[in-house]
Amino acid sequence: MEIRVREATAGDVPLLKELIDEMSVFERLPISITEDALLRDGFHGVPKYRALLAFNKKEPAGYAFVYDCYSSFDGKGVYLEDLYVRPAFRGKNAAIALLRAVARTALENDCFGIVLNILRWNTPSYKFFARAGAAILDDRQVLRISRDRLDLLTRS
Amino acid sequence: MEIRVREATAGDVPLLKELIDEMSVFERLPISITEDALLRDGFHGVPKYRALLAFNKKEPAGYAFVYDCYSSFDGKGVYLEDLYVRPAFRGKNAAIALLRAVARTALENDCFGIVLNILRWNTPSYKFFARAGAAILDDRQVLRISRDRLDLLTRS
Repeated sequence: MEIRVREATAGDVPLLKELIDEMSVFERLPISITEDALLRDGFHGVPKYRALLAFNKKEPAGYAFVYDCYSSFDGKGVYLEDLYVRPAFRGKNAAIALLRAVARTALENDCFGIVLNILRWNTPSYKFFARAGAAILDDRQVLRISRDRLDLLTRS
Repeated sequence: MEIRVREATAGDVPLLKELIDEMSVFERLPISITEDALLRDGFHGVPKYRALLAFNKKEPAGYAFVYDCYSSFDGKGVYLEDLYVRPAFRGKNAAIALLRAVARTALENDCFGIVLNILRWNTPSYKFFARAGAAILDDRQVLRISRDRLDLLTRS
């Protein structure tokens, strides 16, 4: 097994940002995060997220990005925000190694499970998570209220 | 304005549990949370969630249940897990009062916005959030990997 997974440290933030940038290109979505924000929010005070890095020998192969979530119905959970493997390293079990590492911490913390969103067009991602035992909650829709709308709301 | 919103305290946990139970009946979903878990996770150590309560005069009218989320693309956010108003108190602006209170804390904490899921069949909820400026992220699917599947994953 050539793939190794370890927790990201403050020194990994530039690499983490590079991998997040690649993920945003792959997902065709805009991005506003900065290295400063990742450093402040992950490594000063109570961490707001946790990142795991996968390496193939010494080469960075991918990352998982998680935070603690909480269900009013089921209690503690883990939200898997991103799971990304660089194209050159696919087919080497990096994704499952990352997911297993996330699963272990979720079980250690007595969580009800892992929650995530995937993009509907991302069939490989869907197949991967289905094989890993994920259920699709097709009765749910994802909504977002952006900052400018929140501002309007509080003024109205 | 008869509706008042305030942050829930440890002493409110029995009321909060009662409201969550009502929400689970309304949503027709199973529930495993206990008062002990809500007390431990909300009021000991770093809080894993925050609840707001709405009152009509002194009568409990509803609640909002939130936790800090984190987007690798956009940074700090608020996840709105539940927003519930008791049937007898609907039409009195309790829901918008709760949402405004959540919006204020999101803006104070410099968040990119509020994220939430709604149940597809819940048209009144959809209409409420659409009026409040929510965008539907229809390209996303919600997945969940339950505890027993995580256990299988880590053993395989």
